Amino acid sequence: MNVERIGKVLEKTEADALLLCDPSAIFYLTGRKISPGERFLGLLLNKEERPKLFLNILFPFEPCEGLDVIEYSDTDDYVKLLRPHLKEDWVLGVDKDLPARFLLPILKQKLVRDCIDGSLPVDRTRAIKDEEELRKMRRSSQINDEAMGIFKTLVKEGITEKQVADQIPEIYRSLGAKSNSFDSIVAFGKNAADPHHMPDDTVLKEGDAVLFDVGCIYEDYCSDMTRTFFYKKGPTPEQKRIYELVKKANEDAEAYVKAGVRLCDIDSVARNVIKEGGYGPYFTHRLGHFIGTQVHEYGDVSQSFTVPAEAGNTFSIEPGIYYPEILGCRIEDLVIVTEDGCEVLNHYPHEIEIIR
Amino acid sequence: MNVERIGKVLEKTEADALLLCDPSAIFYLTGRKISPGERFLGLLLNKEERPKLFLNILFPFEPCEGLDVIEYSDTDDYVKLLRPHLKEDWVLGVDKDLPARFLLPILKQKLVRDCIDGSLPVDRTRAIKDEEELRKMRRSSQINDEAMGIFKTLVKEGITEKQVADQIPEIYRSLGAKSNSFDSIVAFGKNAADPHHMPDDTVLKEGDAVLFDVGCIYEDYCSDMTRTFFYKKGPTPEQKRIYELVKKANEDAEAYVKAGVRLCDIDSVARNVIKEGGYGPYFTHRLGHFIGTQVHEYGDVSQSFTVPAEAGNTFSIEPGIYYPEILGCRIEDLVIVTEDGCEVLNHYPHEIEIIR
Repeated sequence: MNVERIGKVLEKTEADALLLCDPSAIFYLTGRKISPGERFLGLLLNKEERPKLFLNILFPFEPCEGLDVIEYSDTDDYVKLLRPHLKEDWVLGVDKDLPARFLLPILKQKLVRDCIDGSLPVDRTRAIKDEEELRKMRRSSQINDEAMGIFKTLVKEGITEKQVADQIPEIYRSLGAKSNSFDSIVAFGKNAADPHHMPDDTVLKEGDAVLFDVGCIYEDYCSDMTRTFFYKKGPTPEQKRIYELVKKANEDAEAYVKAGVRLCDIDSVARNVIKEGGYGPYFTHRLGHFIGTQVHEYGDVSQSFTVPAEAGNTFSIEPGIYYPEILGCRIEDLVIVTEDGCEVLNHYPHEIEIIR
Repeated sequence: MNVERIGKVLEKTEADALLLCDPSAIFYLTGRKISPGERFLGLLLNKEERPKLFLNILFPFEPCEGLDVIEYSDTDDYVKLLRPHLKEDWVLGVDKDLPARFLLPILKQKLVRDCIDGSLPVDRTRAIKDEEELRKMRRSSQINDEAMGIFKTLVKEGITEKQVADQIPEIYRSLGAKSNSFDSIVAFGKNAADPHHMPDDTVLKEGDAVLFDVGCIYEDYCSDMTRTFFYKKGPTPEQKRIYELVKKANEDAEAYVKAGVRLCDIDSVARNVIKEGGYGPYFTHRLGHFIGTQVHEYGDVSQSFTVPAEAGNTFSIEPGIYYPEILGCRIEDLVIVTEDGCEVLNHYPHEIEIIR
C-alpha cells in the first residue's frame, strides 16, 4: 500500500470518503493488480479509518499491510456488503467509472447522503509522476524508439497491415517490454487518414503512407508514439506540405511546453500551425492525452483543459492531418513537463523517411 | 439497424426512454461497432421518436437507416449535448454500465425526473439468441473444438505457459476465427488451481495438470471451453477422484438443462455432486455465465439467478475444483437451451487424457 499517495488523495477531496473501483487507481494506491471483470471491486478510503478493499473471493489476493479486505462471493448482496461501511450522512466521492449498476443502488437505498464524482483527487495525484514512475516512463519510451526501428523493417511488398501488426507483441517482448500498451495501429495508404484505423487485410502498395501508432508496457508503464513513413516513393509536393506542417505543429508545441503554461494553449500552438497551413478542419482530435499505467489517463492537452501543466505531468503531443485523398499523417511523442520546458521521451527522428 | 430487436427491448421497459452506452448492446441493436474508449457514446431509444446515437466525430460511422446521429467533438459539453433530447419528466433507463461521470451530471442537473437501471430489457432480449446467432455460436464452438486438438500438441517438455498462449491467436485465425474471445488461460501444475491464472513463465513438468480455458470469435460470436489434461503421467488416485467429480458435475448439469428449469437449480445439480464428493469448498465460482457477442453477457448460472432458463439461452457449464496441493481442474462446455433439453456445443471429449 502506498500510504503517501493515499494521503495526497485524501488531502484533495471534499468528500467524507472515496469509493474507487478503477483497477488502475487501485493498483496505484495499493500496489495490487486485480481485473474484476463485471464483478464489484471497491477501495474505500477515508481519513479516520483504515482503507478497505471489497473483493470477490474469486480473485487471489496477496495480503497488503494496512489494508482490510472484505471478501464476498457471487451470491452475496452488494448493498448489504457496503452498508455497514458507509455512513448515512456522508457525501461519498465515487469513482468516475463506477457503473450505474453499482451507483444507482447506493443512491436509491440511501447508503449515503449524496454521491459526487470523486476521481479528481486521484487523477490529479496520478498526473504528477514521481521519480520512480518517470524512470519507468523513460525506459518504456526508449524501448518504443528501438521497436520503431524494427517495425519499419517489417514493411515489405505484398504484406498486409495485420501481418505487420501480428509481429509487434513479440518484438516488444524481445526488447524487454511486457506487451503492447494498446492495439497497435498499422495503417497503409488511405487508412492512415482514419485516426483509429484497426489493422486489416489491406496490402501494401508502392507510394503508400505507412503509419505506426504503437506503444508497449514496461514495468506497468506505457509508451505511445506515432510515426508516418512513405513506402518506396517519396511524398508528392502536397503530401510533403502536409507532413512538414504536422512536424512543425509537433515541434512548436513541444518547444512551448513548460510548467505553468495552460494545456489548452499547448493545444492551440499546434492547432494554429495546422490552421494557418490551411488544414485546420483535418486535425480532428485533441493534441494529446495524459499517460502512465494507463495509456489514456485523466487529463487532455485540448481546448477543454484550461489548467496549467505541472512538472511531472506526462502526456502525448500528437498532431495529425487526415486528408483522405492525399495523406493521413500523425507525429506523436511523449513528454514530461519540467519547470523550464519538457523532456521529450521519444528520439526516433521526425524527418520524412522513405522505406525502400 | 435492427428494428425488431429495438421493438422487443422497448416493449420490455417501464422507463420513458433508454440511454444505452455498452458498445456490445449498441452493436446488437444497430449493427454498428464502435469502441469509444473514455469518450461518451450513447444510443437513445424511446417509443415515439427515431433512435438517436450520440457519437464523437473522431469515430468514423457508416450511415445507418432510421438512426439519427448527433455528432460532438472533444470540446463539446456533454450535458448541453443531451439536454435537448431528454425530457424533464422522464424516467430514464440508463445502461447498467453508464459510468458515474456521465450519470451524475444527468441526475444533478435534472435532465430527467429519475434514472433507473435500464439494461434488463436489452439483456433479456440478448439472452435469447435467434437462429442466425445460434448458427454463429455453433460455428465458433466448432472451431474451438478443433483448436483444442491443436493446442494440446503445443505442450512439450520445457515449454512455458506464455509460449503456449502466444501461439493460440494464430491457430484460431488459421481455423477461420477472427481472434481470441478473451485472454487464453494456460495453466500448468499448481497454477491450474487459480481459476483466473494468467499465463506466465512457469515451465512444464512431468506430472503437471495442463488446463486450457480458451475461446475465439467467429463472426462476432464467442466460444469458451475448458479442458484439463495431464502431462506424461496419469493422475494419482486423488487427482482421478477430483477429475471424475468435475466431469460428473458437468455432465449431470448438462443433462438437467432444459427450458423452464431454474438457473440456480442447474447450478445446484453440479454443486451438489462436488459437495457430496467432499470438495464443496473448492468449487468457488458460479457454474456458468451467459455468452454471445461478449464472452460474459448478462445472466449467470448461479444461486443468484432464480429465473427459469429459456429456449435460446446460451451459457457455459463450467464446474471446477481448485485444490492447490493436489489438482486444479475445470471442464467447461457451452450449451444452448432447447424446449426439451440442451444442445451441447462442444464435442471435445471429457475423458481423462494424458499428453505424451
